[in-house]
Amino acid sequence: MIRLHHCISARSFRPLWMLEELGLPYALSMHDFPPRVRDEAFLETNPLGTVPAFFDGEVGMTESAAICQYLAARHPEAGLEVASDAPGFADYLNFLHFGEATLTVPQTLVLRYAHFEPPERRQPQVVEDYSRWFLSRLRTLEPRLERERYLCAGRFTAADVSVGYALLLASHLGLDARFKPGVREYWTRLQAREAFQRALKAEQDAALAQGVSPETAMAIR
Amino acid sequence: MIRLHHCISARSFRPLWMLEELGLPYALSMHDFPPRVRDEAFLETNPLGTVPAFFDGEVGMTESAAICQYLAARHPEAGLEVASDAPGFADYLNFLHFGEATLTVPQTLVLRYAHFEPPERRQPQVVEDYSRWFLSRLRTLEPRLERERYLCAGRFTAADVSVGYALLLASHLGLDARFKPGVREYWTRLQAREAFQRALKAEQDAALAQGVSPETAMAIR
Repeated sequence: MIRLHHCISARSFRPLWMLEELGLPYALSMHDFPPRVRDEAFLETNPLGTVPAFFDGEVGMTESAAICQYLAARHPEAGLEVASDAPGFADYLNFLHFGEATLTVPQTLVLRYAHFEPPERRQPQVVEDYSRWFLSRLRTLEPRLERERYLCAGRFTAADVSVGYALLLASHLGLDARFKPGVREYWTRLQAREAFQRALKAEQDAALAQGVSPETAMAIR
Repeated sequence: MIRLHHCISARSFRPLWMLEELGLPYALSMHDFPPRVRDEAFLETNPLGTVPAFFDGEVGMTESAAICQYLAARHPEAGLEVASDAPGFADYLNFLHFGEATLTVPQTLVLRYAHFEPPERRQPQVVEDYSRWFLSRLRTLEPRLERERYLCAGRFTAADVSVGYALLLASHLGLDARFKPGVREYWTRLQAREAFQRALKAEQDAALAQGVSPETAMAIR
């Protein structure tokens, strides 16, 4: 049985969404955010102290976009991966990484220095630097998303889950008001997916069942 | 012909190193760092304004770890990828992402707020926060690297290029003095590779030939 350690709205939403897209059985262990601060014992589960922590038999993984690629590759019949000999393979890999390294990391700086740090450690300049960074990088998707419904291969893939999570985080940070039309409509399409909605419900249900706050620490608007 | 846009010591060193590991022909276009500031025309080559910008026929890519995976998959005979049905596949994907998202990004914050920003915009607190972040994440590799010569699959792969670049950047930032023994010996092994040395020479030779400073903007010790 696959086990995913997750905090509401954290990066671990990516593998949760993938599991729902694939219709796989899984167990969801919910944690308050940030897990390493709230529960020192979590370091025994994941020495990084971060979510996701993902276990599938002998396999243990901690990088959310990598887990998406792993799940897509393990279940090729679902069409969520792009094979290495298919057109779109390079785009697929590029957007899997882009969603995290280029679109999500700058937002975590905004989150940290605008909201999570105590007032005397907040850094308005860093918040402004990386809000602008995120939005300028995001704009580079605009020509593609005005033309295409999904990022690559002419269909929904794990790369859309990687980038889609960055848009979810942006919506929690209030940055979605600054999306351009192509990205805005793409984000609407992603939210309309049944598996996306099931993932949102699954984290809420699991939080309530496990005594973790169903409010996201990131729902800070 | 493959073309790689590169700045001395930047993330684009990853694909350069991979090209040398694979013994592929390539053209190297050198830029001063940061390329978007030094040369506005570069935005026509890569709207993100970042390096790497990598072109292989119809393919264009911008994420350095993704390019490593792409090149490894295009040349499976070289053994630099781990196939999806092989043991170590999950580790392979995880470390490709870990090298960039978890180990490199925090260092770019150190670089920015300790060195690249003008004095009045420097942020010593951010520098300290993310130096510690990097070193604490790096320590999680220690048990594995005390036991194994490489990160996964019992051999050198593209995942070692992804993480190895983070160690190169750390050495420019002076953080290598704080490596633990497992990581320190691993880093020595990586530097001893002929392809790594050829990549260092290739960027120097290309910089001199193209009138770009052979000093790295990141060689700031």
